[in-house]
Amino acid sequence: MREREIIAWIAKRAPNFGQGLRVGIGDDCAVYRPAAGEELVFTTDFTIEGRHFTLPDYTPREVGYKALARGLSDIAAMGATARFALVSLAVPDADFVKPFFGGLFGLARKYGVTIAGGDLSRSDKVHCDIVVAGVVPAGKAVLRSGAKAGEILYVSGRLGTWKKRPKPRLDLAGVVLRHASACMDITDGLSMDLDRLLRASGVTCEITAPPPVMRGATIDDAWHRGEDYELLVASAKRMPKPFHEIGIVVEGRPGSPLPPKGWDHFG
Amino acid sequence: MREREIIAWIAKRAPNFGQGLRVGIGDDCAVYRPAAGEELVFTTDFTIEGRHFTLPDYTPREVGYKALARGLSDIAAMGATARFALVSLAVPDADFVKPFFGGLFGLARKYGVTIAGGDLSRSDKVHCDIVVAGVVPAGKAVLRSGAKAGEILYVSGRLGTWKKRPKPRLDLAGVVLRHASACMDITDGLSMDLDRLLRASGVTCEITAPPPVMRGATIDDAWHRGEDYELLVASAKRMPKPFHEIGIVVEGRPGSPLPPKGWDHFG
Repeated sequence: MREREIIAWIAKRAPNFGQGLRVGIGDDCAVYRPAAGEELVFTTDFTIEGRHFTLPDYTPREVGYKALARGLSDIAAMGATARFALVSLAVPDADFVKPFFGGLFGLARKYGVTIAGGDLSRSDKVHCDIVVAGVVPAGKAVLRSGAKAGEILYVSGRLGTWKKRPKPRLDLAGVVLRHASACMDITDGLSMDLDRLLRASGVTCEITAPPPVMRGATIDDAWHRGEDYELLVASAKRMPKPFHEIGIVVEGRPGSPLPPKGWDHFG
Repeated sequence: MREREIIAWIAKRAPNFGQGLRVGIGDDCAVYRPAAGEELVFTTDFTIEGRHFTLPDYTPREVGYKALARGLSDIAAMGATARFALVSLAVPDADFVKPFFGGLFGLARKYGVTIAGGDLSRSDKVHCDIVVAGVVPAGKAVLRSGAKAGEILYVSGRLGTWKKRPKPRLDLAGVVLRHASACMDITDGLSMDLDRLLRASGVTCEITAPPPVMRGATIDDAWHRGEDYELLVASAKRMPKPFHEIGIVVEGRPGSPLPPKGWDHFG
């Protein structure tokens, strides 16, 4: 199968919800017309064979799903709505391409994400890099740096089990946008990501309750294992279910009082 | 060197020209506030060891330069102004990272490109994927699909020699925006890219002159070799230097009258 045929196959099936996307797959660039009063948020994530998944433990469909889910999780963490994605995929074998995009398109359709472009290449191992763009009312994006002393820290669900098909918490983006002062998604372990949020905000915290733990996981897994794709939030308001209080923000040397032990790609 | 230290090193040195970029490196997402009346254009390109370059033929600095130059070339092809980039880099060895970004930042500074975010990971071979975002007045992006019968086809410079440090033709983006009906950059060989532009526009052409040839290259190289990073343009107006006429757009079966023989990643 030639590159042109593969791209034609992708372009025919790629979800396109419009919503500002004037030019999608097939030109040198995608073209997006922003609506008045909106800001755009952008995230990019690698999904690499042997690093983020292994074959044949994952099917190509599952890799496509996960690659997009990683980016959607970051969009949720800003309190934003996902709008479009650019998908770069390098594979040893063209047979990988169709089922990969099958899994990815299914998730994109579920959340109204247009596939606006990308790049295809060959590589010894599967490498995917996805940029997801989302929209948020101007000035309202929820950053890591907004936590203030006196606010409560929450996590959005049970932690500790590494998930093959993580569910991006876009269902919670609205409540995050309305109520959270700071937010990030938990992908490198709660202990490391909590440290990052507190440092970005220039504060520390007291732990008031253990994080909720997935069935089959330990409390240590919940603190340090990573790949949870739940949200970590600071809020001055009482957060509704499924948010679960774990601490209170206090003044002090910026960072977590617990030693961060999560994932470091170069550690 | 730990991931946090590497990211701190990058964040400290990354060019930041502001211009709408509200949040850059360090949060879950970058945040961009569009200006009134502007549209955004997006392109993404892999630069992969063994595919787009080899080591040690390229230094890490040269890889960083080339990875960004590929994206800037696409921005020029839309008649757009480059605004910001997201850089994903996977490497076998952390020593590659600093000189890579040194080369990339130098080119970014030259064209006023803010580095807004990215991802870092490990991989057996160097894989880089860069998204570049540019801006263009709403409705004015120059597409591949705009060529009409009677218009003249031009290339923006001499072709045929594979370039280690390609110069993205952002110097020509303004004249492309004002005068071109259709444009694309020549990266997979003129014969293949000409075929793509003509198909996208639903027209064909007659060749009226040979493309200008780089010193040391043959006319066959100029037609088929690829990696030229010059622009292919259709215009109803007379294009100024350095544009060089190669043909005239005519009605007919869409595509090039010459057999396309350029680069196909899955051919």
